[in-house]
Amino acid sequence: MRQRGLYELPANPRASRAFLHYPSGVDDTGPIIDLHSDAYFMGQALREARKAYAAGEVPCGAVITREGRIIARAWNQVETLKDATAHAEMLALTAAQETLGDWRLEKCTLYVTKEPCPMCAGAIVHCRPERVVFGCSDAKGGAAGGWINLLEANPPLNHRCDVTSGVLGEECLHLLQQFFREARDRKKLERGTGEIIDLEN
Amino acid sequence: MRQRGLYELPANPRASRAFLHYPSGVDDTGPIIDLHSDAYFMGQALREARKAYAAGEVPCGAVITREGRIIARAWNQVETLKDATAHAEMLALTAAQETLGDWRLEKCTLYVTKEPCPMCAGAIVHCRPERVVFGCSDAKGGAAGGWINLLEANPPLNHRCDVTSGVLGEECLHLLQQFFREARDRKKLERGTGEIIDLEN
Repeated sequence: MRQRGLYELPANPRASRAFLHYPSGVDDTGPIIDLHSDAYFMGQALREARKAYAAGEVPCGAVITREGRIIARAWNQVETLKDATAHAEMLALTAAQETLGDWRLEKCTLYVTKEPCPMCAGAIVHCRPERVVFGCSDAKGGAAGGWINLLEANPPLNHRCDVTSGVLGEECLHLLQQFFREARDRKKLERGTGEIIDLEN
Repeated sequence: MRQRGLYELPANPRASRAFLHYPSGVDDTGPIIDLHSDAYFMGQALREARKAYAAGEVPCGAVITREGRIIARAWNQVETLKDATAHAEMLALTAAQETLGDWRLEKCTLYVTKEPCPMCAGAIVHCRPERVVFGCSDAKGGAAGGWINLLEANPPLNHRCDVTSGVLGEECLHLLQQFFREARDRKKLERGTGEIIDLEN
């Protein structure tokens, strides 16, 4: 598999992004992995989400980048830490602040596999990253346009982020659906009934 | 100063609460401090807010109670910890979860001097305390009815809190106003101009 240099910017990021999504038939030497593309960093966030999945947590993952480098990674650890605020985004924001020694995440981009909830969106606004990129939307409780929009609500909030949605959206959604389907099946087995427990609701 | 027993419930909580607000002329032996009243616990949150003030932080404080006992205390530490998510409520929620060994803050009440922001309100909904009591409102960015209402927005959120506002509201507001006035004066002095910097906006 051919790779571009880690800090080399692609000539045309859009083309490169599309290329990563649809590699077959475009270049028979195999896909180029653009290490600066949204898809690449979302892939890294998905890697974090899979760690959450392996730990029995709702599979969400996040990474934060600054000038093309990942400065923080985190996965949802609500059950592991017994802390309902330990969403992937919250842990990633705190880690990024630790790395930079500042709570202002200027020039940073947050990648997260699922649309942020109101808590995370509120936290993002406080920390002021430039961009937020997410995978799948959450029409019911998302706070980046799904249910409400806190990221682009300035005024009255103090900061406004650029938002990109749907990056590797299918993969991000599939992992969540798989988790909830398996959790439902386990519940059904435990209860020994045919009843379906809707964990997503 | 006469005190009721720590775990003795007042015969009439409302009367007792009013009594705490207006002690003079009601009982010439001195005020009864009702250690179960909202005013008492908000006083404790104000004590935390004063710690924030002394540290040069925006003076917000919070306590969390369960069955009449304080199980967590915290003050805003954004600058101290260099973490924009380190609001008093967030730190108190995490501390309460640590105390209970569970992220579900059942039977708990959160007292906070200022109306929670969207981040904190979102976090409160995740942690599921029964009640939220706050001091002064934040019409511009508050998420408990000031700007938006996330605490009573179920559906679509998974939990709904009972909300009480305005408890020791004047004192809570006064402390915030004092902080911002002093910060403005310092800025004015530093710049050596008569220009007023509006830190609240």
